[in-house]
Amino acid sequence: MLTIADKTFSSRLFTGTGKFSHQQSMVDALAASGSQLVTMALKRVDMQNRDDDILAPLIANGMNLLPNTSGARTAKEAVFAAQLAREALQTNWVKLEIHPDPKYLLPDPIETLKAAEALAREGFVVLPYVHADPVLCKRLEEVGCAAVMPLGAPIGSNKGIRTQDFLEIIIEQANVPVIVDAGIGSPSHAALAMELGADAVLVNTAIAVAGNPVAMSRAFALAVQSGRMAYEAGLAGQVQQAVASSPLTAFLEEA
Amino acid sequence: MLTIADKTFSSRLFTGTGKFSHQQSMVDALAASGSQLVTMALKRVDMQNRDDDILAPLIANGMNLLPNTSGARTAKEAVFAAQLAREALQTNWVKLEIHPDPKYLLPDPIETLKAAEALAREGFVVLPYVHADPVLCKRLEEVGCAAVMPLGAPIGSNKGIRTQDFLEIIIEQANVPVIVDAGIGSPSHAALAMELGADAVLVNTAIAVAGNPVAMSRAFALAVQSGRMAYEAGLAGQVQQAVASSPLTAFLEEA
Amino acid sequence: MLTIADKTFSSRLFTGTGKFSHQQSMVDALAASGSQLVTMALKRVDMQNRDDDILAPLIANGMNLLPNTSGARTAKEAVFAAQLAREALQTNWVKLEIHPDPKYLLPDPIETLKAAEALAREGFVVLPYVHADPVLCKRLEEVGCAAVMPLGAPIGSNKGIRTQDFLEIIIEQANVPVIVDAGIGSPSHAALAMELGADAVLVNTAIAVAGNPVAMSRAFALAVQSGRMAYEAGLAGQVQQAVASSPLTAFLEEA
Amino acid sequence: MLTIADKTFSSRLFTGTGKFSHQQSMVDALAASGSQLVTMALKRVDMQNRDDDILAPLIANGMNLLPNTSGARTAKEAVFAAQLAREALQTNWVKLEIHPDPKYLLPDPIETLKAAEALAREGFVVLPYVHADPVLCKRLEEVGCAAVMPLGAPIGSNKGIRTQDFLEIIIEQANVPVIVDAGIGSPSHAALAMELGADAVLVNTAIAVAGNPVAMSRAFALAVQSGRMAYEAGLAGQVQQAVASSPLTAFLEEA
Repeated sequence: MLTIADKTFSSRLFTGTGKFSHQQSMVDALAASGSQLVTMALKRVDMQNRDDDILAPLIANGMNLLPNTSGARTAKEAVFAAQLAREALQTNWVKLEIHPDPKYLLPDPIETLKAAEALAREGFVVLPYVHADPVLCKRLEEVGCAAVMPLGAPIGSNKGIRTQDFLEIIIEQANVPVIVDAGIGSPSHAALAMELGADAVLVNTAIAVAGNPVAMSRAFALAVQSGRMAYEAGLAGQVQQAVASSPLTAFLEEA
Repeated sequence: MLTIADKTFSSRLFTGTGKFSHQQSMVDALAASGSQLVTMALKRVDMQNRDDDILAPLIANGMNLLPNTSGARTAKEAVFAAQLAREALQTNWVKLEIHPDPKYLLPDPIETLKAAEALAREGFVVLPYVHADPVLCKRLEEVGCAAVMPLGAPIGSNKGIRTQDFLEIIIEQANVPVIVDAGIGSPSHAALAMELGADAVLVNTAIAVAGNPVAMSRAFALAVQSGRMAYEAGLAGQVQQAVASSPLTAFLEEA
Repeated sequence: MLTIADKTFSSRLFTGTGKFSHQQSMVDALAASGSQLVTMALKRVDMQNRDDDILAPLIANGMNLLPNTSGARTAKEAVFAAQLAREALQTNWVKLEIHPDPKYLLPDPIETLKAAEALAREGFVVLPYVHADPVLCKRLEEVGCAAVMPLGAPIGSNKGIRTQDFLEIIIEQANVPVIVDAGIGSPSHAALAMELGADAVLVNTAIAVAGNPVAMSRAFALAVQSGRMAYEAGLAGQVQQAVASSPLTAFLEEA
Repeated sequence: MLTIADKTFSSRLFTGTGKFSHQQSMVDALAASGSQLVTMALKRVDMQNRDDDILAPLIANGMNLLPNTSGARTAKEAVFAAQLAREALQTNWVKLEIHPDPKYLLPDPIETLKAAEALAREGFVVLPYVHADPVLCKRLEEVGCAAVMPLGAPIGSNKGIRTQDFLEIIIEQANVPVIVDAGIGSPSHAALAMELGADAVLVNTAIAVAGNPVAMSRAFALAVQSGRMAYEAGLAGQVQQAVASSPLTAFLEEA
């Protein structure tokens, strides 16, 4: 079981509501994923006619919404968005995303730390989306973040775990859960993140744009379980020289 | 369901009996894997006191033994080993392995093709272990092999799918099942092979030498299912530029 | 020719003075490298008996010293170090390095930006060593840094260009020179950085600990020239399907 | 100096004549490369109006032609092509290429070994183009090949050294020169092959289709020198933990 702040999760696959071609597809995929934490962007329209209405059955079933501050370009905007979300969705959890650059949507380390500190002080459970920067992750932990969410690759790229060297250091040093976010494009990527010792992964695009989002959700759920199980079972390292898995048959000489 | 020659398999995870620290660990791990095809080397001692006795309950439960010719250095030795195995284990299935080099145990393309042709002519169901060589795989198919087993990395190295560029071509061109064999060191590697469209994977070392072989077996079983499911669900490709999974929140301006 | 602030460089290979087994080896390697910018840590002992005395002939020959703030854990310490260095070495150039973590020596993004802003305001030519974080690099440029020095891999690891996805974005967006620093372990790594469009690379460990540092210096100098030349000559992209470089011989049929 | 059969080479960059947009570009690029061994396909038209006429000045200057059997699909066709080439070009050197598959042009291991044996027996200096298959390379050496030419990636793909795990084994085991052929798309790829200990590389497509083939030739020539020099100078390995190249400055405390 994974614990973040006051909640425990039996599923280590976190998901999102973006990019699905239609709402029913989203709902079915989220249900199939078994995910208990689902991030969603807050838009004005949500205030009246919210995506989370359609999510009500899932929420009744134990799924938690994680509002994110996507679109915020500064700490100030992000803090404001988090406050609105708290009011609208009745949750003090927030996925902190600050990306001034509209092309690659990469997170701003300075504004993210500033907002994280302010939000933690206000009692938010802050999960910041950041570059796979070990020093920054440490500092976010120190200002009170409940977890850190370093990226695997640029968001939406499906490129997988391109930051492995740095994720390994982050995982080694962290005292809060590490959730690999962004870039995970296939179940093998999710499994790898878990094998490295990540506490959870967040997958959205790869499910939403799959040929069959429901089946892809299930595939990711299995991969996350698999990677965690392998991490706990103890993976052997890589070796240079071959070691036969079949003992060399001596029977020919001996026969 | 995967069909090879006259058998069908609901599990696409094939395993082996080598390198386990003790027999009970092997039996438990094989049971946990759900594998229906398990390779084993033939040794003289096996003729009297066979590993497969201990495997009897699994065999009764639907597991098939796949004798291999590990240790053979020439086509002639391999054919002889296959004939002995047929007699001893009452099966015409054989995993053909010919590796003259005792250090890296890499397969010999020339002797393998020669033995494959001879064995296929004698009515064997031949599954040859080969380098990830697309032309060789095509020729093995043409002489009557029931499947091909290209390697992911040197055997026992746990390095994963280092031959991806060539596996993709093999899978694209094959009319027989493609089973990725050797080098698979973790569930994420197995999932990747399946995502590429492999029909099955064979894993031995990574399970046998894991801290907990039973749990690692289960992890591999999930990963193989996951990878296959993702392949069938339709994976999206990699992209260069970010595409936000959360629609950019316009609420700040609009509020 | 590369221009940074008020200096121009015909060599795009920058080097350092650390880790050499003895001083003469360092001097010979630096001379062989053709490097015109050489970083050195400032130590108390340097104030009296400076490494740069032995470097005097190289300096007379056009090599510039680039004092670094290695060892500083905060912006305040780094600014103080830069001021001492300016006084001691009569240069307003500084390589800004702030790494609170003694194990991996990874740079602190927050303190680095703070120090960069302060030093730029004081008239320093600031070259900050940072994670390959595109947003941070942009902000460092905006506060007046003369160049940015993103890392290829953890310092001293010799792992090469592990941050390629992010370096490409940094290079695409930068209006100041991009110098890839840290992790470059072999000439092929340096050539790759230059092929991606980096303006220069900084190599220290890989030269200092080579079997033959002088020869390795020359090898790096050639690789940097080569990579730059290839970048300017226009590299073709990767393709999936083979295209024969030899036109298929029709002669057999035609003969 | 590299020696193959009866010739010595001061340049370890081998090139080809295919895919250039026009002849003068080819001649200029070959001259700039400094290459002393240049492969060319034999076509019927070559018999009357040969590409090598235009190459006469380069040949007078020490460049050797290496006819290849590109287009041959069987050993028999390749042997015939080699015999024609010997007669037409007055050389007993031949680059043996047999690729039955017109899409990926991957070499056939069986036919290649058969042709190599026949040609070596007839006194040819045989340089076979093969998959990066260590066992096959060893067998080609045993039947009398003067060198082996394993591929880095599918021909024309520019993907670089995708077969590194296997090239390392080939180089470790070979008693004849190892020339990495096919797939090399940029100077950093060529440098890497040389750093691994390859004796030479063959580059054609990446030069021929570059924006500026002459400049790209020079870039490759430098990269090959660089990689060889680094190999001889002794590269340090990769390490996990950071080791500072700048000694940590103690001056702040000591000052």
